[in-house]
Amino acid sequence: MNHLYSSKLLENAVLEFSKLPGIGKKTALRMALFLLKQDEESVRQFGQAMIQLRSEVVYCKECHNLSDTKICEICSNPRRDKSIVCVVETVRDVMSIEDTMQFQGVYHVLGGIISPMDGIGPADLTIDSLERKVADGKISEIILALSATMEGDTTNFYIYRKVKNFPVVVSTLARGLAVGDELEYADQITLGRSIVNRMPFENTIKEI
Amino acid sequence: MNHLYSSKLLENAVLEFSKLPGIGKKTALRMALFLLKQDEESVRQFGQAMIQLRSEVVYCKECHNLSDTKICEICSNPRRDKSIVCVVETVRDVMSIEDTMQFQGVYHVLGGIISPMDGIGPADLTIDSLERKVADGKISEIILALSATMEGDTTNFYIYRKVKNFPVVVSTLARGLAVGDELEYADQITLGRSIVNRMPFENTIKEI
Repeated sequence: MNHLYSSKLLENAVLEFSKLPGIGKKTALRMALFLLKQDEESVRQFGQAMIQLRSEVVYCKECHNLSDTKICEICSNPRRDKSIVCVVETVRDVMSIEDTMQFQGVYHVLGGIISPMDGIGPADLTIDSLERKVADGKISEIILALSATMEGDTTNFYIYRKVKNFPVVVSTLARGLAVGDELEYADQITLGRSIVNRMPFENTIKEI
Repeated sequence: MNHLYSSKLLENAVLEFSKLPGIGKKTALRMALFLLKQDEESVRQFGQAMIQLRSEVVYCKECHNLSDTKICEICSNPRRDKSIVCVVETVRDVMSIEDTMQFQGVYHVLGGIISPMDGIGPADLTIDSLERKVADGKISEIILALSATMEGDTTNFYIYRKVKNFPVVVSTLARGLAVGDELEYADQITLGRSIVNRMPFENTIKEI
């Protein structure tokens, strides 16, 4: 469907909307016509929010998370424990872990994961910066919180080798049955590892 | 899911995106993170396109279609037949008919349809302006191209009564089997009307 727009401005807005991920021409047109129905000030705010986001957001110098200031809110919060660093792939993962409200340390955003298939090597990530932090001696524990995939395991192992000679504990996220999982439907590998890495029952009591 | 964003700018962009129809918080976040990966100039263009659309687009003084100029491209095109006016509900319908490339006249956008349930009466539409055009005597035919619904039929009849005393032909879109429809699956009313309003076979020959 290649619409003949009566307005170049409308055509342009539709074109811009359809550059967004998952947005086709039809949805883009619906969005543009929606904006036309809003008052002028709201639409100005909409456009400005996007321009400002791109021009003013920075990456935190400490943890490489998205931030409005040089050092992000988490890193500059005196109540966060800076000796425990949770290593994640993306800023989205920081949000997911923050949502759980179970972690009081700080983060280190790698900006990706080692994936030779996609041409991403260690040099494309912020691993050097992590290594420097560890070498400074202020970190007591690194929690590797990457995806449970082959690329995640590769990256975990690469980081482990880089920091193993420093006096730092390296831990990883617990793997096993997800809360609510039925044994019958768990995959074999997960179930197998859950038996091998079984944990003291007392550890789970406080959760009940 | 109520994310704790590390950046107010990001939070604001996500909020603005999620105001768009059919966009939830999760998709809005994906869009905002996508913009962050684009170069600054592209994002400026994106934002500006939306602001400009809202502040500069006008409605054509002749046909009430969206336009960049006082009189739209269709109305100001000397090759369009201004004596044949196709009456449609929205600017989207103009696009649909233009896409067919079968119509050489001009349009009249009502801006809606008479619908007492939604509180939309004749005064909310551009019917007065249509009546004035007809009264001027420059129009030879009005084609009612509204939806084949009860509201469409009501609006058709209202317009018909307004203009029937002027020397103007009032026609409506052909109704019948859609191209590609199988008889077996056609609804009874459509099929019944198709038999009553059967047309000379010669009319269809030129299409084959």
